Amino acid sequence: MYYGDKAKAFLSTNTGFQVMTAYTATVTVRLKRGVLDPEAETTKQALERLGFDLEGLRSADRFEVDLEAESADDAHERASEMAERLLANPTIHDYDVEVDER
Amino acid sequence: MYYGDKAKAFLSTNTGFQVMTAYTATVTVRLKRGVLDPEAETTKQALERLGFDLEGLRSADRFEVDLEAESADDAHERASEMAERLLANPTIHDYDVEVDER
Repeated sequence: MYYGDKAKAFLSTNTGFQVMTAYTATVTVRLKRGVLDPEAETTKQALERLGFDLEGLRSADRFEVDLEAESADDAHERASEMAERLLANPTIHDYDVEVDER
Repeated sequence: MYYGDKAKAFLSTNTGFQVMTAYTATVTVRLKRGVLDPEAETTKQALERLGFDLEGLRSADRFEVDLEAESADDAHERASEMAERLLANPTIHDYDVEVDER
């Protein structure tokens, strides 16, 4: 069920009941520029051997996390923390997070 | 350089010169519904051990392919063929392709 932000604030203030919304946060983890990506290079060469013409190929990991949160900002913050603590290695990875309501 | 579709058609017809545009095709490869994903399950459990509260996690591979093509449709078609022939395994994977001009 969808509650508008005002309705949520009202319920939260007047009933002490925290309304949670279901979100899917998509975390994309990619190698930083300059970090070698032998898997992508191998994939590119395999495509070329199959006769495909391409100029470059980068690979990335994508995690779709289903979670309940008070707001999209809250979901974004928690997914970013998941990326920093586990999903991405900050030495070699960049990540971005997108949040959609489920 | 960007050429509109009409300009491209004109050049192609009147000069025999094929104008190519640079595109990036993003191919997302995910497991079909019902296929077990032990890596995602392990990642979910690791996040839970770190104290995160989440309801589900799915992982996917993302390939960003740089290629030159006559049109976005042409780029889409070639990237789809790459997915079918190499990037995805049709027995266990679904894929989708998004094309953007570079």
